[in-house]
Parts: sequence; C-alpha cells; structure tokens
Amino acid sequence: MRAYAPSHITGFFAAHRDADPMRAGSIGCGLCLEAGARTAVETAVETEILLNGTAAEAPVSRFVVDRLVATPVRVNTVLEMPLGSGFGASGAGALGCAYALNAFFDLGLTANQAASVAHVAEVTNRTGLGDVAAQNAGGLVIRLKPGAPGLGEVDRIPISPLEVCCVVRGPLSTAEILSDATVMKEVNRAGSACLKELLRRPTLKEFMRLSRAFALQAGLASSWAVDAMEAVEASGGMASMVMLGEAVFALGAAEALREFGPVRHMRISQRGAGLD
Amino acid sequence: MRAYAPSHITGFFAAHRDADPMRAGSIGCGLCLEAGARTAVETAVETEILLNGTAAEAPVSRFVVDRLVATPVRVNTVLEMPLGSGFGASGAGALGCAYALNAFFDLGLTANQAASVAHVAEVTNRTGLGDVAAQNAGGLVIRLKPGAPGLGEVDRIPISPLEVCCVVRGPLSTAEILSDATVMKEVNRAGSACLKELLRRPTLKEFMRLSRAFALQAGLASSWAVDAMEAVEASGGMASMVMLGEAVFALGAAEALREFGPVRHMRISQRGAGLD
Repeated sequence: MRAYAPSHITGFFAAHRDADPMRAGSIGCGLCLEAGARTAVETAVETEILLNGTAAEAPVSRFVVDRLVATPVRVNTVLEMPLGSGFGASGAGALGCAYALNAFFDLGLTANQAASVAHVAEVTNRTGLGDVAAQNAGGLVIRLKPGAPGLGEVDRIPISPLEVCCVVRGPLSTAEILSDATVMKEVNRAGSACLKELLRRPTLKEFMRLSRAFALQAGLASSWAVDAMEAVEASGGMASMVMLGEAVFALGAAEALREFGPVRHMRISQRGAGLD
Repeated sequence: MRAYAPSHITGFFAAHRDADPMRAGSIGCGLCLEAGARTAVETAVETEILLNGTAAEAPVSRFVVDRLVATPVRVNTVLEMPLGSGFGASGAGALGCAYALNAFFDLGLTANQAASVAHVAEVTNRTGLGDVAAQNAGGLVIRLKPGAPGLGEVDRIPISPLEVCCVVRGPLSTAEILSDATVMKEVNRAGSACLKELLRRPTLKEFMRLSRAFALQAGLASSWAVDAMEAVEASGGMASMVMLGEAVFALGAAEALREFGPVRHMRISQRGAGLD
C-alpha cells in the first residue's frame, strides 16, 4: 500500500495569516505535476523518516506522524521532484505520509481530514501555505479561499496533461520570504489582483500570463529568471517563475531553456493525492 | 482533444429537492469507476449527438450543448459503462460534453462551472441528482451537501484503485422512483441515517456495509438482487445494489456472481472528470 501526492508549482499567490492553522493558507493558482511523493509506511522500533532512502529530519512529515499515530513507524518516501525549489516537496511528503498512515493503521479519516493534518504541518513549519490544498485536488488548481482542504475552497481550470519544462537554479527560502513584511505586502497585493483577473477568464494561457506578471510585480524574479522567461517567449513559448524557488517553468519552446540549466520535462497531473 | 468522465454507482443517498437546480441534488456516498464517457466535439451543419456511433436524442447532453454554444456541433460520445442501470451514463455523457465544449470553443469555464451545467441538465431531466458532483471529483465520493459542484460539498474516502465486479439484470427508472413519494420518504430517511453513520467511520468497508443496509431499508432491492448479494457474502465478499439499477456490485468473491449474469470487472477511478 503506497500513497501518492503530486508536486505543485504556484504561479501566483496571496498569503492569508490566521492564528488557526486550519484557516491560514493562501489564495492563488498553481499547477500540479505528476512527479510527486510516493510514500510507504511500516511499523518500526523507533520512528524514522527516509527521504529517497536516507534518514532525514523531515519536520513536516514528522509533525504528521506525531499527530496521527502513537506507535513508532518507518516512513519511506521517494521524492521525484526537485527539492527546496518551489515544487511543494514538503507538502507532498506530508500529504503522502498522512494518506499512508491513514490506510496502514485504518484510521478512518476522509481525504480532507487526512490532508488537513498535512496542511497544518506545512503552515506550522512555515514551509508552505497552499501546496497541500492544491496537491489534494490535482490539475491546474485555483485556490479561491484559503485554508485546509474542506475548509478552504478550490476549483480547477480544465486542461490536458500537457508537458511542462522546468529549469532549476537553486532554492529560495519560503520561510524567509513569507516573514519579510515589505515583500509580502507587494506579494499579497499583486497576488489578489492576479486571482481576480484570472477568474474573469480562467484558462491556462491566462494563468501563464498572470504568473509572469506576478513574478515581476512582486519583485521576486532574479535577473537569471527574467532572462530565462524572456528566452522562452522569444521562441514562442510562455514561461514564468516557480513560487517560491529560483526556478522557471515553461509551456512550449523548451529548447530555449537549455542555456539556463538542465531542462526537466514534467507532465501535468490530472489526479490529486491518493492511494496507489 | 477529448474529455473524460468516470461512471458512478451510488451506494446510498437522500434526495434534496429545490426549485433552483443548482441547489437541488442529493447527499450520500458512491463509487466512481474507470469505465466512463469519452467525448469529442467538432463543428457541424446541424447539432447531432452520437452515442457509441449512433445518433441519439440524448436529452441531457443536448441540454448542455444548448446552454453552452449557439453554433451547431457534432458530439461524439463513447460510453464504456452499462447503460440505464445506475452507472451514471447520462451524467458522465453530459459532464464530458461540458468539458469538451469548454475546451473546443475556449469558453473559459472553470471545472466547477462546466460541471454545474451538466448537473443542472441532469436535475432538470430527472435522470440523476448526485452523479455529476461525484463524477467531477473521482474516487469513493461522499456527498456531504447537495448541489452543483462548487455549491454542494464533497469529500472522499481514500482507497486504492481496487477491482469492483458487477452484474446487471436490467434498468430501473430513476425518474419513476424519484417521483414516488412513499418510496422517497423511506429512501431519504434511510439515506440520511447511513451518511451520518458513515461519517463516524468513513472506510470502504463501512460504505459497503451501509449500502447493503440501505438497499434493504429503502425497499429498493428485488429478490434477484438480494440473492446475488447473499451469494457474494456467503463466499466471503461484500456486495450491494447499484442505485438506481437492477444491478449488484461486489468487492471480492466475484465468482459467486456468475450465476446471476455476465460478470463485469471494473476498476475504481482515482481521477474525476477532465481532459485527456
């Protein structure tokens, strides 16, 4: 029995703080990708979390374990996406962990209840605000109202499982950016405006266009990222920046990304988190 | 570009009437299956709906076409599930039609907006109340609050994509049963009680057990259906009746169904409606 959660790249967002982590979160829009987290659990003498075969601190997944079970477990998670670069690895790991524990110990949680534990783990650890809500749904997800799955509100933009190409230069610290009040003021203003505009015409193209505008308006794009986005556009594709990572994703014109690093081809995931 | 919607068998339900078809619907729980509707659209001289290659009245899909586009189209739908026997074929066809038209004409509808048109088409034609909401989500879907996707509320019971076996004897008329006040009083009482009990322990086994109890309590099971369910149970499986069809579905002990008709093996669908 294995659990699966897709990766997720946010195109634009606005943060919503709340003392209750179930109600904290973000609004915005992002894309789930098939490369994800695959998690198996088994009983153990001492609780241990393995990420790609190596024992890890993994505080977000550990939070989920502590919340859900009292007995020691070995959580074995394979992460197929780039790490620490805005692909929602911590959220996917925590979400897969919640689903896997629910199944293994027959905890009797619904999908939203299991996912809510992962959402709270992310928010509490300041590793993300909206990834879990999106990863639980799958596809190109609009986060309409912030909060844990079932409490927040999501919708989707229907799309085919197209190929998305990415280049990753390195990580950005989510916690650091989310703590910078000046940056976050601009992020929230731009993110709310983008969501409002997307809802006037919710299509993949508009998502790409608004994500691109957001990256610049919010002041989060490095010159490397701007150069990569412009190279894709000059070749007839569309590109934007992965929130929050020093990474760029593109639809079409993948070859234009080559000079910016190894190009990773990923497919849009139609399904959300679940059991394999 | 093709759209897909899974089939859906309801285990138990309670109807919710409302003058507004967006708010009408049902609560309950049911299982989405991979065999579904696959729909392609193209422009035509005159609007035409083909079901498995043959021109058909298809009033539910036609309603969707009339609502969404003004130009004539040819809708080509392949239905992979048994027809008229509670597998949600009309809902899946309408849902696939809505997604396909949205994509083909670039209408800019979100998933919930497109699915809502299919929900209204079903409710207005009295062919179903909750199939579209479940088919839009995928998996083992709990319908917590009635209504169109985005207005009603659903959750899921996380499960693996197991195999479900079915035998179909023939159709039951959904419209006829939904119009019988005496029957519906008992259906609604039993359905609400089953949902309440399921939420205490939302697991696949409980879903099967409560569906079985509902079929008897609501007085909808024929002696043929009761015999088939008991044969499965005698062989160690779990079975219940498809709502609303003269059909039985089972988990495990498929061989026990053989004497009741040709056994169809279907897989639980993890994904909801979308584009291929």
